[in-house]
Amino acid sequence: MIEAPYLLFLGDAADQLAAKVARGIADWRPDRCLGQIRLPDCQADLGLADLTIKEAQARGARTLIVGVANRGGVISDSWLTVFEQALASGLDIASGLHNLLRDQPRLVEAAKTHGRRLLDVREATEAYPIADGRLRAGNRCLAVGTDCSVGKMYTALALEKEMLAQGRKASFRATGQTGILITGGGVPLDAVVADFMAGAVETITPPNDTDHWDLVEGQGSLFHPSFSGVTMALIHGAAPDALILCHEPTRGHMRGLPHYQLPTLEQLRDTALPLAQVVNPACKVVGISINTAAMDDDAASHYLEQTEQRMGLPTIDPYRHGGTRLADALQ
Amino acid sequence: MIEAPYLLFLGDAADQLAAKVARGIADWRPDRCLGQIRLPDCQADLGLADLTIKEAQARGARTLIVGVANRGGVISDSWLTVFEQALASGLDIASGLHNLLRDQPRLVEAAKTHGRRLLDVREATEAYPIADGRLRAGNRCLAVGTDCSVGKMYTALALEKEMLAQGRKASFRATGQTGILITGGGVPLDAVVADFMAGAVETITPPNDTDHWDLVEGQGSLFHPSFSGVTMALIHGAAPDALILCHEPTRGHMRGLPHYQLPTLEQLRDTALPLAQVVNPACKVVGISINTAAMDDDAASHYLEQTEQRMGLPTIDPYRHGGTRLADALQ
Repeated sequence: MIEAPYLLFLGDAADQLAAKVARGIADWRPDRCLGQIRLPDCQADLGLADLTIKEAQARGARTLIVGVANRGGVISDSWLTVFEQALASGLDIASGLHNLLRDQPRLVEAAKTHGRRLLDVREATEAYPIADGRLRAGNRCLAVGTDCSVGKMYTALALEKEMLAQGRKASFRATGQTGILITGGGVPLDAVVADFMAGAVETITPPNDTDHWDLVEGQGSLFHPSFSGVTMALIHGAAPDALILCHEPTRGHMRGLPHYQLPTLEQLRDTALPLAQVVNPACKVVGISINTAAMDDDAASHYLEQTEQRMGLPTIDPYRHGGTRLADALQ
Repeated sequence: MIEAPYLLFLGDAADQLAAKVARGIADWRPDRCLGQIRLPDCQADLGLADLTIKEAQARGARTLIVGVANRGGVISDSWLTVFEQALASGLDIASGLHNLLRDQPRLVEAAKTHGRRLLDVREATEAYPIADGRLRAGNRCLAVGTDCSVGKMYTALALEKEMLAQGRKASFRATGQTGILITGGGVPLDAVVADFMAGAVETITPPNDTDHWDLVEGQGSLFHPSFSGVTMALIHGAAPDALILCHEPTRGHMRGLPHYQLPTLEQLRDTALPLAQVVNPACKVVGISINTAAMDDDAASHYLEQTEQRMGLPTIDPYRHGGTRLADALQ
């Protein structure tokens, strides 16, 4: 578990997009964010207070979060200097970078000296059991996609926000690096050894109150051959009561695979639902979440209406419209 | 890669079943087996020449294969003594045990001293790429099952044997520990990190002659929630041209899951085929392999005939009848 509150490290981000992990944390867990720390060349700004390490320490920061992508696959000296200061000031460091913090001798040394932790959330550090496929108390909703990166995490987070605002019991369950940094815990499913994938998902969706919903972060797609095994393990491990179909209508081909077309929403429904029902026969598809970021208002509205009519399910873009109609569908 | 010829270590096996890995190697790769080595209490016998380490060395043995399950989760002193002798005599050691050879300080020391290898085939040692989902030259057949342990490996090995006997080009492709020990190479798919599962399968089924068949060892089942993600990655990574459905008709519930019923062959076909066609639209279900070990001759014949009629596909038990009709189905 990553301890809050956070100081978000934006480094020398070339633009806002390079700091999208930090942006996600600031958007979805503003209560966990004390401020941001930026190097002189930084072109990103979250609108949070700019704090030095010392200022953050004085305000009670527990963890420096690396909220920015690194360039050229190295962690630069200027970054390491800030990280060493953070450790010396009593902060842990959490990172989802491919380059691991624990492979940096300077940081390992400083963490040891100051008794702090280096949290590489890209790695699975826990030992997970083999899944037993048992249903458990409480409810679970899983977003499944026609492709990778179509808005599954965003959908689950928007649902959680809406349900909590309504006073309902709900927990976003992170299965990827960004989700883990946002919520402070979860499992980096793509880094888990094959035999234990579904068991890891069972572990993060334990028995709960009968009126509680786990909103499980989706991964990959059953139609994406690089990652479909991860998606399958997620469907069986989460044992969802409800599926939400996620889609990005303007995408020309599967992400990273120019030789693959996206399936239709009907294909996704007809493939994912029977597989989910292997574990949870009562599972239903309850709604559709469309990422309309690449469409103007008229085109988006038209597409959403048409899709809702065609599929007979509440169809929204949670970024444009919030999660209300999907949250209602989970009643 | 494990170097042949092998000396098969049966240890102090309590019965024949405890040495089933060695039995599989002796059955399917007799040409790789020089002989067996047994401790005084051994109750298993493969009918091979009993050799000492020195005799095996003199006859050119390259690897001692641990072909027996260990008791109580430890590698005993009596085993270690034999293993040290083998290393000192110039043999590698290969093992699929959960207890790793490389966690035994005595063996690590001896291997280093004598320049030999400790091959733990339960571990994935290679770095695999992320799958790209491209079709490649040559043909691939994958056995998929209604459950784990219904005869998928046996089916693929029987097919390979038959096709090679017919002078056709065929290669069994191992994806599990026993299969790797039998053939000397492959990938322990259940030990691969999630993101690289399908890429590992692509790696062991590379482009080949247009009249060559890879006979890919199946794993798990799409209907077994503990391991379905592994099965899914195998289906998309292998990009099969042909599927064979495997089933054990007398099993009362899914292996290890008393609360799960087995699916029907129709459910397996209707689930696996569309998923395979995501990667290889030309994929067909070409036959059915039934494990009738628990049935008498009459019951087995009756079941096979009925199933063949119902499903409209060649239906055999390769253990009783060999792989001929399935090999014919791959023409």
